[in-house]
Order: sequence, then structure tokens, then C-alpha cells
Amino acid sequence: MNVPEIPFPRIAIVGVGLIGGSIALASRARNLCRSIIGVGRNPDRLNEAVARQVIDSAVLSIDSLEDVDLVIVCTPVDRIVENVAAILKATPRETLITDAGSVKSGICEQVLELDGGKERFIGSHPLAGSHQSGFEHATADLFVNRKCVVTPVGETSPELTETLTQFWKSLGMLVHTATPRDHDRILAMVSHLPHLVASALAGIVPESALVFGATGFRDTTRVAAGDADLWTAIFNDNSDQICAATSDMIQRLSEFRAALENDDRHAIQSLLQAGRENRNEFERLQQNSLKDTKQKSSPKKGPS
Amino acid sequence: MNVPEIPFPRIAIVGVGLIGGSIALASRARNLCRSIIGVGRNPDRLNEAVARQVIDSAVLSIDSLEDVDLVIVCTPVDRIVENVAAILKATPRETLITDAGSVKSGICEQVLELDGGKERFIGSHPLAGSHQSGFEHATADLFVNRKCVVTPVGETSPELTETLTQFWKSLGMLVHTATPRDHDRILAMVSHLPHLVASALAGIVPESALVFGATGFRDTTRVAAGDADLWTAIFNDNSDQICAATSDMIQRLSEFRAALENDDRHAIQSLLQAGRENRNEFERLQQNSLKDTKQKSSPKKGPS
Repeated sequence: MNVPEIPFPRIAIVGVGLIGGSIALASRARNLCRSIIGVGRNPDRLNEAVARQVIDSAVLSIDSLEDVDLVIVCTPVDRIVENVAAILKATPRETLITDAGSVKSGICEQVLELDGGKERFIGSHPLAGSHQSGFEHATADLFVNRKCVVTPVGETSPELTETLTQFWKSLGMLVHTATPRDHDRILAMVSHLPHLVASALAGIVPESALVFGATGFRDTTRVAAGDADLWTAIFNDNSDQICAATSDMIQRLSEFRAALENDDRHAIQSLLQAGRENRNEFERLQQNSLKDTKQKSSPKKGPS
Repeated sequence: MNVPEIPFPRIAIVGVGLIGGSIALASRARNLCRSIIGVGRNPDRLNEAVARQVIDSAVLSIDSLEDVDLVIVCTPVDRIVENVAAILKATPRETLITDAGSVKSGICEQVLELDGGKERFIGSHPLAGSHQSGFEHATADLFVNRKCVVTPVGETSPELTETLTQFWKSLGMLVHTATPRDHDRILAMVSHLPHLVASALAGIVPESALVFGATGFRDTTRVAAGDADLWTAIFNDNSDQICAATSDMIQRLSEFRAALENDDRHAIQSLLQAGRENRNEFERLQQNSLKDTKQKSSPKKGPS
């Protein structure tokens, strides 16, 4: 009988919040590691995370990390580069490093300049989360059937990419690879722009009208409740791509407005139909990817 | 012992779809009527609605309506005025008439010009629905804790307004009154603009990027899947107010874009914070109105 191999005996999580905490819980639940060390700045919060068994132990500084196999940086995007720089210095050459940031170009470019960066770092973006934050809301199932984008660059070894892809797959994710730039361009359209639009929409409604908001308003603006500081960092880090996407949005809104001003029912109908068809295609793709996961996972039982 | 009074012994529903069918089911479940007659254009669909006990009987023409106490017009907004005109001719002076259209000014103005219009018609807008349509998805609970706007005008008698308000309250709704114009201005912001924005957002994302859409994209664009013809009629009927709201939206998006272009983190943060605060206020108002309903409804048991 084969004893199943533990892929990353010691995992370190820098930033033990919703995402970091969920990676910790999911990695342990799926036997991907033997122990998990959390790194953070607030000792009370770290102690609480240990007490709740989200992590096994905690340190207050990356410099205290030594013998770990995989480090996942789950801090806000504007702290990731400095965190990775410290990890590259503190840990041995065999330690694999990734992150969970929502923007990739700036981070990857800067990290690849660092000594050891291109040998040991690949960017990741697990597309999971919630409007809630904190490890109190972390769950081992946060990543199941969600998408993850891994962003190798030309210098990245295929083995490294494969190892990291397997890690996210083991958490239940559907993994895509893309260049950091393609990632940022696509995410500007399907994640950052929706956030910006939801925020703009919620922001312009006068308080007296809010009471008349129903399910349409609720869903269309849901993400606007997200942490403003976290999103400021994301917007700032991907500003070129988000500007381009915002211009596309303004252009489409102007087309709608012109159609309304001209009482052009045919144009209004065409614009609405274009949105409807894309939305239905999105739904179809979602259903298909869930079906693929089920087909792929059903014959396998337990770790292989 | 008092026998509870039946407020509207005979109710007619013109347009037996999701909303009309749900009003029928809810009215019967709450003992607001003895019988419900459906009016529609498709005999097969009407027979199916009778077979499913959504309505008790059906006719293919409003002219066949006679002795009914309340008629609710649930057809698309561009058919409501002609339907009400026919109902005013076919039914006796005592028959109360309302509608369920999402736009009110144009409909109310035109109906009030009709003989008997101001004596017998008040506009209503039950803010309930779903991206699904058809009486197959109708439920007796569709309106519970949802908002309804009733739009009396200067000539409307307070008794008529009160009777209609009570009707919607009996279906479990939270009823507000507003002038037709105020209704349209407010709904342009909290319902029609969100639909337009969701549709524009879904419409500009290239198919190759849709696969990377996650929960944020899903929720922000959900309503874009709605029926394009129905929404074309709504947009067309409230085009002035929706144009104004769309201009506000374009203005706010331009502010976001300028902040991004200037790498102005403070401005980005302020804009995001404004959206977040409004969204949180919306959530608080929703929770409060649910609490109010519970407090009001808890001492009462059964019909009073």
C-alpha cells in the first residue's frame, strides 16, 4: 500500500484573513500539508486564528520563516511585492512562493526583478471571496468549483507552473493560465469594472430613493459593500486596464442614452439583446465548467 | 362570530404571467376573493393556467368581463392603456382597476383622460419579479415583504387609494404612495438604471473573457438576462428619467476614470467609500422594513 505523499509538508500563509484562512483550512482538510504557520502583524488576531485552529502556529515577521515548502502571500495587493522580497531572503531556494492578489502585472514584473524571483515565484489569483472578511468567515470549501488564474511568465519553468496548478486544483479550483498582462486585461472587464460600476451606481442614488430599491438594485450593487481600501489598491495597481474598460462602459452607456433620446426602440432592443445574450452565454459557461468538474472528479476517490 | 368579509369577491387578471399568476395565487390563499378570472390572448396558455388552478376561469377578450370587483392589468407597459380603456367600457362603475406596470406617468396621464378613469383607476407597481417569467413560476408568496408603490393623483379619492393600499398589504407588501412622476424618477434610479447598467456591462465583455467571470460579475449582471422586449417598452416609456439617470452614471464613471488616470488614490478611495456607504444604508433600510413588518404582523392572527 502506498502512503499518499504530502505535497507541501510545511505551508506558510502571510495575511490570515478570509482568503488566507480558507487556504489554510482547505490545505489541511485535503492533506496537502502537515502544518501551517501564519504570518501577520496583529498578535491578538494571530493568537485567535491559532485558538480557532485555522493555523497551527504564528509569527509576527516574515524573517522568522525558515524551513517552509510553500508560502502563499494573501496580503492586500500593495503589500505583496515587499512581502515576497522578504520571503525570498528568509527562506531556502527550494521554497515555492505564490500570492493571491487580484492584479498581476505590476506584482509579477517587480518580483521577477528580485534575486530568485523568477525561479521561485509564480503569481496566482484564486477568484473566490465574499463581501465578508476575516478568518472568522474562512471555510475549507471556499475554493471548490471556483476559478483560479496562474500567471507564469516566459522565464517560469513548466514544472513550477505544474506544481502550483496542482496545488490549486487540489483545493477544488478550476485552474487557467494566462500571462500577467492578459490576466489584468480580462479581470479589468469581468471583476474590476463590475466593482467600479456597482460602486458608481450605489453612490449616485440619493438616500431618499434607496428605500425603493428591490432585488435588482440589491444584486447589481452587492459588491459595492466591499472594503474600500482593498479595492483602492486594486484599482490603483491596474489603473490602465480599468480606465480602458471604463471608457468602453461609458461608450456603451452613451449609446443607450442616444437610443433613449431618439425614442429608437429598435436600438434599445438591440442593446438589451446584446447584454442578454452575453449574460446567457456566461451562465452556460458556468454550468459547463461545473459539469466538467463533476465528470473529472467522479471516478477518483481519495488522494491519488 | 363575525364571518370575515371577502374584499373583492370577483377578481380579474389581465395578463396571466409571473406577476398576474402570483397575484391570483396570493389573493386566493389570503381569502381576498371567491373567484379569479384570467384574461389573455393565448387559449392554450389560459387553459393550462386553469388546469394548474392558478385561475378559476378564462376569457379571451376584456369585452367578456362583466361583473368583477377588481381588475389588475399585468400586461407589458405598452399595452396597459388600451387594456384599461377596454375595461372601463366593459365593466360597471363600481369595478376598481389597477395595473402592475413598472412605469407610471405616461399610463396614469393617458388613463385619467378616459371616461371614468380618475374615478376607477389608480396605478400600482408591485416591486416583485424575477428573471423568470410565466405562471409556471408564480407563487402565492412572491409579494411577501416586497415593496409596492401606489400612485394616486390629485383627483383620486382617498377611499380608493386606501382600498387599493389595503389590497396590496393583504398580499404581504410594504406599500408606499408617490405621484406617478416621483415614482418614475425614483424607479429610473433604483430599477431602470441598474437594468441598463447591468445590460451594458454584460454586453461589452468579449466572449473570450466571460469564462473568467466569477460571483461579482454574476450578481452585477444578473438582471441583464431579463426579457429584452419587456424592458424595451419600460425604457421607452420612461426615457426622459432614464436618460437623466444615465447621464448621472456617465458623470460618476468619468470621475472614477479621471481619478484612475491621475493615480489619485484619495479620490478613488472617496468614490468607493461613497458607494459603500450608500450600499450599507440600503441594506440597513431593508433590514428595518423587514423588522417593521414582523412587529406589525406578529400580534394579528388570521383575518381581522
